[in-house]
Amino acid sequence: MPEKSVVDVAKAAFKPVDWGQTKILVSPTANGSEHVRVGLTEYDPATPHEPHAHPGQEEVIWVLSGRGYTETHGEKIDLYPGAVAFIPAGMEHKTAAVGEKMQAIIIKGPVRDADGVLS
Amino acid sequence: MPEKSVVDVAKAAFKPVDWGQTKILVSPTANGSEHVRVGLTEYDPATPHEPHAHPGQEEVIWVLSGRGYTETHGEKIDLYPGAVAFIPAGMEHKTAAVGEKMQAIIIKGPVRDADGVLS
Repeated sequence: MPEKSVVDVAKAAFKPVDWGQTKILVSPTANGSEHVRVGLTEYDPATPHEPHAHPGQEEVIWVLSGRGYTETHGEKIDLYPGAVAFIPAGMEHKTAAVGEKMQAIIIKGPVRDADGVLS
Repeated sequence: MPEKSVVDVAKAAFKPVDWGQTKILVSPTANGSEHVRVGLTEYDPATPHEPHAHPGQEEVIWVLSGRGYTETHGEKIDLYPGAVAFIPAGMEHKTAAVGEKMQAIIIKGPVRDADGVLS
């Protein structure tokens, strides 16, 4: 039985990360999820994400507000409200806001990457 | 390499389902995902979802607009914009809109349930 069956995004607290701030809504620690992890990330244009990859773990970026891009596989994908980007497991990507802060739902699966890291 | 690295939600077409209409943005057939499936579902209050469960597969409901509920594990969880509900694998649930149509992002992981069904 999960600890929390429902969370109000507006009431969940952001935590600072190097590229802005993030709040985790669904995760093993938040509500016992074993397969999917869901959060809301606010990218700050002043501090772009560094290129990185999650071995064995897929990522989906569903943009809610703001604008930006994700660079992946040699492509620069424009991000805007309603854009849903898919980053296959292990593929390098760099995500950043442009001009203003960008809020996006970040979905990852499985919960742990191939190195066992809960990310 | 996925067929599509980014999708515009506004341009993806809805397909009718018994409880309203849905569009799939991330799936094995849409872009080669192997772990997560992401869609946008519009629940019609006239045709509530029947109680059902996905063995081995978790579901997350992230409400974007409208109001409704999901009944799961004897609880009736109110759904409203910004509510993020987590339904553990195999848990019965019935989701419905109330009064007006409700749009929600539906996330499932893994992609196939324990019976191998791609749902």
